Amino acid sequence: MSDIVARVRDGNIRSAGRLISMIEAGDPSIEALLSLIYPHTGKSFRIGVTGPPGAGKSTLICELAGAYLASGRSVGIIAVDITSPFTGGALLGDRIRMQELTRDDRVFIRSIGNDGRPGGLSRSAQDAMRVLEAMGKGVVIVETAGVGQTDVDVVDSVDAVVLVTVPEAGDEVQALKAGILEAADVIVLNKADRPEADGLGTELQELVTGDYVGAGWQVPVIRTAASTGDGVDKLCEAINAYETYAKEENRLGARRKLQLEKEMRTRLREKMIATVDHSLDRIDLSEVVNLVNKGEKDLYEVVKDLVNFHKS
Amino acid sequence: MSDIVARVRDGNIRSAGRLISMIEAGDPSIEALLSLIYPHTGKSFRIGVTGPPGAGKSTLICELAGAYLASGRSVGIIAVDITSPFTGGALLGDRIRMQELTRDDRVFIRSIGNDGRPGGLSRSAQDAMRVLEAMGKGVVIVETAGVGQTDVDVVDSVDAVVLVTVPEAGDEVQALKAGILEAADVIVLNKADRPEADGLGTELQELVTGDYVGAGWQVPVIRTAASTGDGVDKLCEAINAYETYAKEENRLGARRKLQLEKEMRTRLREKMIATVDHSLDRIDLSEVVNLVNKGEKDLYEVVKDLVNFHKS
Repeated sequence: MSDIVARVRDGNIRSAGRLISMIEAGDPSIEALLSLIYPHTGKSFRIGVTGPPGAGKSTLICELAGAYLASGRSVGIIAVDITSPFTGGALLGDRIRMQELTRDDRVFIRSIGNDGRPGGLSRSAQDAMRVLEAMGKGVVIVETAGVGQTDVDVVDSVDAVVLVTVPEAGDEVQALKAGILEAADVIVLNKADRPEADGLGTELQELVTGDYVGAGWQVPVIRTAASTGDGVDKLCEAINAYETYAKEENRLGARRKLQLEKEMRTRLREKMIATVDHSLDRIDLSEVVNLVNKGEKDLYEVVKDLVNFHKS
Repeated sequence: MSDIVARVRDGNIRSAGRLISMIEAGDPSIEALLSLIYPHTGKSFRIGVTGPPGAGKSTLICELAGAYLASGRSVGIIAVDITSPFTGGALLGDRIRMQELTRDDRVFIRSIGNDGRPGGLSRSAQDAMRVLEAMGKGVVIVETAGVGQTDVDVVDSVDAVVLVTVPEAGDEVQALKAGILEAADVIVLNKADRPEADGLGTELQELVTGDYVGAGWQVPVIRTAASTGDGVDKLCEAINAYETYAKEENRLGARRKLQLEKEMRTRLREKMIATVDHSLDRIDLSEVVNLVNKGEKDLYEVVKDLVNFHKS
């Protein structure tokens, strides 16, 4: 069983792919394998790239990956966003960039979908990132669509959150404020060559400035035009600066510890729900419903009975 | 203990109010009381009025309540929407209408907030509706904001779903399509006197027509102007027609049976989560986190241990 784990640790792409397929399929033996994987994780720098579909995340990730490779670090990429070019819907330019990337054997790119388990996509993404870490990738990048619970969860499992937005997404900034924006370590205003970009750029800058006065890290707003490559070097610098900052004074260690506790709680909750759902599948609930309908039991009594049944 | 239940059954407003406050507060003795309440439910016709804030739901509900009173049926109203005039933010016209309503002792109006339990607001709303049913209200109306899980849950616990929308909400129709729209039994296009209303009205009509060809109930799109009262009589007719339809051939009974089974599952899940959360509060999870951090245990092992601990 540990053969596949050993091959993953050797950087074998086929074995890593097989393991991630098992994660996606919810294979019953995957958890034992992930237990073997786990001790070999924690050495990669994990970056989450999030933002609305069409913001140019994939193009930026290709550029970032190229820069990391040039600096001698290997890269693993997980795409959770189903609208991502990595998962099939690529523009020609992106596809060419991706093909160049995948030809480099220091890069591993994989998209993952939902397996239907509670919290399935989030947990699959976390598990898949660990496989890439065990492969020895220096940098692991995960791309999400920036909406919904999966993104919040993914944000909770990376070392750096890069939020990508575009001028068209102006109206969404209010929505972002509530959620992902406050989690961002670096903000990218992509397609910044468009005339509408100036207002949003200023707004974003104001939003992140107020909160962080006096704190150690001032969230930068980087203007890029991924299509021409403008600003990408600045983005790389900003992420590198954040990595240096995070690794000082064990900030990264403290962040990971909080994330670990949160993930434990979430996984435990989800397992308990899965246990309940699984056993409900075996109970004929319609019989209980009939009892309530006939007035022989009341709803609250029945739920209490079911809870006691599951606790015993 | 059953004194308060007896008083609620006599239609005592103070006792009903106290019971709903206990529901909101998550009082430990409330479930036993709800068990006593439950056998006296099921006789009211329950209407859910849902739609975006500012759509004029409360004004329409006041008009509806007036019409039901005029036809000799008593009315209970639960407002779940925190932006509802019923919960304080009323326009003067609404306040006057509400005051007139509350002076009538056949009407009981109550707003409820979230108590922080998992699914708290949804479950509180369902419980509070049952209190009004036990009071003997002929019609129970629940008002929700039309966004989020609470609304989906509320939709799942009423006999008729009235979706209220307005021309300004045009962009939200796409969002509605995915969720509440397909659950609507009656659609109201309020503020239909505005020029922008025509396009949305046609769009809504088209959306609901396709799906229901050949089915028993054609979802009507009613144009109202709640401020002038235009169209409110047609809305009452439409809801009455739906009530008649639902009560034929035990359609209502079948719908309630499905809802009951769903509520059982949801309550059971939430109880199990609450149990887990409660016991996690008593465990020092940081100790477990430290074990993982030191590499003495791995995350997956720890979660498995915790699951087994909770099952035993």
